[in-house]
Amino acid sequence: MREPLTLSEIAARLGGRIVGDANCRIAQIGSLARAKGDQIAFLAHRRHLGELERTNAAAVVLSADFADRTALPKIVADDPQLYFARLGQLFNPRPVCTPGIDPAAHVHALARVAPSARVDAVAVVGARAQIGERAWVGAGCYVGEDVRLGEECRLYPTAVVYDHCIVGARTVLHAGAVVGADGFGYAKGREGWVALPQIGRVVLGDDVEIGANTTIDRGAMDDTVIEDGVKLDNLVHVAHNVHIGAHTAIAACVGIAGSTLIGRNCEIGGAAMIHGHIRIGDGARVSPGTLVSRSVRSGTYTGIYPFDDHASWIRNAAGLRRLASLFDRVRALEKWLMQKEKNRD
Amino acid sequence: MREPLTLSEIAARLGGRIVGDANCRIAQIGSLARAKGDQIAFLAHRRHLGELERTNAAAVVLSADFADRTALPKIVADDPQLYFARLGQLFNPRPVCTPGIDPAAHVHALARVAPSARVDAVAVVGARAQIGERAWVGAGCYVGEDVRLGEECRLYPTAVVYDHCIVGARTVLHAGAVVGADGFGYAKGREGWVALPQIGRVVLGDDVEIGANTTIDRGAMDDTVIEDGVKLDNLVHVAHNVHIGAHTAIAACVGIAGSTLIGRNCEIGGAAMIHGHIRIGDGARVSPGTLVSRSVRSGTYTGIYPFDDHASWIRNAAGLRRLASLFDRVRALEKWLMQKEKNRD
Amino acid sequence: MREPLTLSEIAARLGGRIVGDANCRIAQIGSLARAKGDQIAFLAHRRHLGELERTNAAAVVLSADFADRTALPKIVADDPQLYFARLGQLFNPRPVCTPGIDPAAHVHALARVAPSARVDAVAVVGARAQIGERAWVGAGCYVGEDVRLGEECRLYPTAVVYDHCIVGARTVLHAGAVVGADGFGYAKGREGWVALPQIGRVVLGDDVEIGANTTIDRGAMDDTVIEDGVKLDNLVHVAHNVHIGAHTAIAACVGIAGSTLIGRNCEIGGAAMIHGHIRIGDGARVSPGTLVSRSVRSGTYTGIYPFDDHASWIRNAAGLRRLASLFDRVRALEKWLMQKEKNRD
Repeated sequence: MREPLTLSEIAARLGGRIVGDANCRIAQIGSLARAKGDQIAFLAHRRHLGELERTNAAAVVLSADFADRTALPKIVADDPQLYFARLGQLFNPRPVCTPGIDPAAHVHALARVAPSARVDAVAVVGARAQIGERAWVGAGCYVGEDVRLGEECRLYPTAVVYDHCIVGARTVLHAGAVVGADGFGYAKGREGWVALPQIGRVVLGDDVEIGANTTIDRGAMDDTVIEDGVKLDNLVHVAHNVHIGAHTAIAACVGIAGSTLIGRNCEIGGAAMIHGHIRIGDGARVSPGTLVSRSVRSGTYTGIYPFDDHASWIRNAAGLRRLASLFDRVRALEKWLMQKEKNRD
Repeated sequence: MREPLTLSEIAARLGGRIVGDANCRIAQIGSLARAKGDQIAFLAHRRHLGELERTNAAAVVLSADFADRTALPKIVADDPQLYFARLGQLFNPRPVCTPGIDPAAHVHALARVAPSARVDAVAVVGARAQIGERAWVGAGCYVGEDVRLGEECRLYPTAVVYDHCIVGARTVLHAGAVVGADGFGYAKGREGWVALPQIGRVVLGDDVEIGANTTIDRGAMDDTVIEDGVKLDNLVHVAHNVHIGAHTAIAACVGIAGSTLIGRNCEIGGAAMIHGHIRIGDGARVSPGTLVSRSVRSGTYTGIYPFDDHASWIRNAAGLRRLASLFDRVRALEKWLMQKEKNRD
Repeated sequence: MREPLTLSEIAARLGGRIVGDANCRIAQIGSLARAKGDQIAFLAHRRHLGELERTNAAAVVLSADFADRTALPKIVADDPQLYFARLGQLFNPRPVCTPGIDPAAHVHALARVAPSARVDAVAVVGARAQIGERAWVGAGCYVGEDVRLGEECRLYPTAVVYDHCIVGARTVLHAGAVVGADGFGYAKGREGWVALPQIGRVVLGDDVEIGANTTIDRGAMDDTVIEDGVKLDNLVHVAHNVHIGAHTAIAACVGIAGSTLIGRNCEIGGAAMIHGHIRIGDGARVSPGTLVSRSVRSGTYTGIYPFDDHASWIRNAAGLRRLASLFDRVRALEKWLMQKEKNRD
């Protein structure tokens, strides 16, 4: 947290048009519903207009469309959500990373840790690993041999990066994230499954964020690649040899099977599942819970069974197992009808 | 484990009606199928009557309906499953937590650990954290700054609680559980995604259980709240600002998107997925694999594609992509028919 | 990595028929697309014939069908994928496990670690645990009391094995895997959920592989059993008392509910979900994303909502909630028609 700022100090840094008391002092961001009297909130959507009326916030950020809906001091911005994200960063800068290797960290003699980096207690850093300037390796993390961590990247406690993988600058791994475990590749032999050694790496770009307990497998022979600015939520699975284009965002519980190429600026909803060996075009959107089984271009794709009360579901779902026959029956009716009409002519 | 008990000693503590030898000595609970001769089993369901006939258990717990189906000593109980759970707890009390901070634990000088609490080797406890009486922090856990752990709560090895989060009394976190990672909140800027700082907390009530590798994100500005007695299975994802009402049970692999309110006493089946910004009423039940995309009241909700052998699925699923047209065709037939009937009049 | 081998040295060990320069020296395996000039690649599928033409590999492995499609030195094999997996193992043997207990590991005085085993820094090994010959316990792992780890098994960093569980020979646990957490078993009491103590174990066979952040719960009273040669990908959930037969392979994000029996040699696709208390026959295949809700024999089973562009999906999915009524309408039309035909007779 930082010193309070007046609205005019804020606007001087972030732009926006002030309406009302420009000297109103702001200490932190808050939600419309629960902001305290020294906080600034924002109106994200029309459905929150009721909360806007009742808010205790000192000031609000909103779009011109709603500027007349409150008498509070306000900043009118073109994109209130984006403005508010920047405002949030202004009041909550990344914590300064006190440099130094904790005496209870275990850093291999051949590892290279930048003087401004920080390695916490019970973290383990392998031989020849390189840790960049101002990077922060949390408690209990494992950084394998030959790993490279870019500057200012942050590994929260218990994150694991296997040998040889690359993590870009400012990239964040949340707790329990596992980068570089073996891909799931086997051939069937007489004695059972024979593992194909997984000798590729994972290469994470700059400004990537990896959620808690998300797993990204190393490539079989080539690399698994996550480009700059990609955001992965929690419990996402990225299989070997997947390539995810820059600035794609993937919500929680998604699985992406092997060798699939996902374009740039895609948005993939929670619990979606993407088959292997396919291609998702730049800017494509996949709805939550949707299984994508073949390549698609840009566009929005959905495949969700619409839920219902259980009794209705039973009644309707039973029909699905006879749907092909229903088409046949309708075709027979149509044929009969056409015959009938023909006979009449 | 504890000393054996006779059936009458058991009934004196837990109630129930003994039929047969009340002095029969019981050392442990067991399953009908595999109980040894000093164990007590229970009949959960009619389908296990065959196992009841063949069991080697010393005694059984069952309902009055089935009391005449075995000659073994037995305890007749109104709710045999509940009775058996209590019986299980009687024979398997929570392990006593030997107090003390392991010399290989890393507890910050400003943390406060109750004298009766236990912190195991390679656990890390941050500044100003408070650890309650008889709480147990397992090996390799991370307890962040300002975290409060209630009395008798238990963190199994490698569980992680981020800074500022609150864990209630007797609450259990299994291995790999992550409480308080950043919520997934971004605004789209010209330079890519801009993160909205996540400055809320996670607040877990009393008697909560969090399964292995489950993740619960901290709130964006307000808190993510899990009320008393909530049970979450493994690999569940709870997004920022979700609120889960008391005594709700959520099975494995479920995902709950941001800002959703789930009522009290709900039951959510495995791999269900709940959209963000909706409300699930008290006592609602969601079937496994169901995606709930809008608010619902109490009731049971289902949306599952009924599986079939692959060839039948292909035949029927193809029809789904033309279902709207099938409705049109049936409507055309009906119209023709009505016209026909009308003409006849 | 190892010394380069000529094609004839390779064929002497693994079989196959050499066509072209048998003295061609190979240093490593590679992909057709990116192999370097001292690497050998393989042709997995007809769709990669274009890459075969352009490859820089020194040699290729392929089936007789495609042997005339390249002038490169080659090994013709009956099952190129299996051949290539063995070739990969030849060039990438399991890393030799330098024996010894790291001074920063925490091994209980009553644990027994084989002299040829290795325990890395900040690993914790509980009382009476037994660690077999040449086993390797990675950094930050937790091996509970009375656990037995078979010879040559490998726990990657942060894997957790709870008390009393058994891990077979050569079995691999990737980072974040949790073996033996409590099963999700509760009875509903007036005061809320009452936990049934979970006193069974997890028993993993030989040559099992457990992916990153996969969770396998201990049995309630009996054991959860994973037989020899089973392969589980990342983020899989196996509930209490599940039994998985030998050589079954389960892709990522799958959930298996309690007490289900899965046969031998099954293949279960990613994000499939298997209900509890059912039986999946030997050799059965379950497609990705399919929810299996009742017992099945050998065969292939699918239940996926076919995805579509969003607008088409909306149009068609709406019909699903009225599908039963559509059947009724078609039946009414058919009845009318039959009546019509009858009247005509």
